[in-house]
Amino acid sequence: MATGHTDPQRRERILTATLDHIADEGVAGVSHRKIAARAGVPLGSMTYHFEGIAELLHEAFSRFADHVVALFEQHLNAAGSAEEAREAVTDLIHELSDGPQRDLIITHELYTLAARHPQYRELTRRWMIRSRELLERHFDADTARQLDALIEGLALHRALDTAPHDRRLTSEAVTRITTAVRTRPSPSPR
Amino acid sequence: MATGHTDPQRRERILTATLDHIADEGVAGVSHRKIAARAGVPLGSMTYHFEGIAELLHEAFSRFADHVVALFEQHLNAAGSAEEAREAVTDLIHELSDGPQRDLIITHELYTLAARHPQYRELTRRWMIRSRELLERHFDADTARQLDALIEGLALHRALDTAPHDRRLTSEAVTRITTAVRTRPSPSPR
Repeated sequence: MATGHTDPQRRERILTATLDHIADEGVAGVSHRKIAARAGVPLGSMTYHFEGIAELLHEAFSRFADHVVALFEQHLNAAGSAEEAREAVTDLIHELSDGPQRDLIITHELYTLAARHPQYRELTRRWMIRSRELLERHFDADTARQLDALIEGLALHRALDTAPHDRRLTSEAVTRITTAVRTRPSPSPR
Repeated sequence: MATGHTDPQRRERILTATLDHIADEGVAGVSHRKIAARAGVPLGSMTYHFEGIAELLHEAFSRFADHVVALFEQHLNAAGSAEEAREAVTDLIHELSDGPQRDLIITHELYTLAARHPQYRELTRRWMIRSRELLERHFDADTARQLDALIEGLALHRALDTAPHDRRLTSEAVTRITTAVRTRPSPSPR
């Protein structure tokens, strides 16, 4: 089945192999030769599908962001009320932090890359916007932004802790960040 | 001034050179040879001071965690009330995310390492415990844990966004996460 350069699955296989390689060995070692070998494609198809390593990494991380956004969507789609959305977000945080280390590693490889090379921040920014849009189905824009940051922090801290916090604490934090605090009027002078 | 192996500054220089190298090129490229050249020390003093690359990385990242904990402490020490602590935390989040990219890069190099190799999680765990202890001077333990995760998430999202959120939003999030929500009693049935 020599479909050659036009085989659409070949591009997919290259991207999957790139993410597998990043999870195993990091961004630093990515080369056309290594990825072609891992994907089982001829070296020439690397340059046919991608202009260079930067484009390859960009496309692979975009694919990965799609995967995490789909996870957000899957959890939030079923929620019919703000209360159910809070439950769904709590589930999501625990799934993200109990889940495969592969996702945690790839996420932080991307953040490190974006910290080092500002051109990747367009990618992290678009990812954040998509997550917030899903949260905005249930919460106002400011709350969605705060909640998105809390999800990130709680999932990260659970994943990097040797004694991760329990679901009750996650649930309490999600409730707090989605609840407006009325500012008390200053006490009137006597 | 050949103070040789016993020069205490030599160990410091090696650790600083290691963090500089990680910021510039990542953990992947750390070798005794490269770090010795960067620190201006003879190759032999690398193995005199550190058993191997793993110990060198561990010590360098511990030194880095000390630096970030000192930043927490510096901000929180001046706070005399919970309200002042909230202000201090808001300042801290903006300093962390507006600050040198070097710190952001090193932080995520460490997180990637800890995601990949569980033995580094003892280090991330101790770091989190120290941050929370500082927050516990002003807040209960559960709140400190939630606030610590929020600081992480908000600082990270500000740093990785091309249009970072403003101080008002940070301040609102900090107020919310440090304010207990009274659970409403369910409405009584008619």
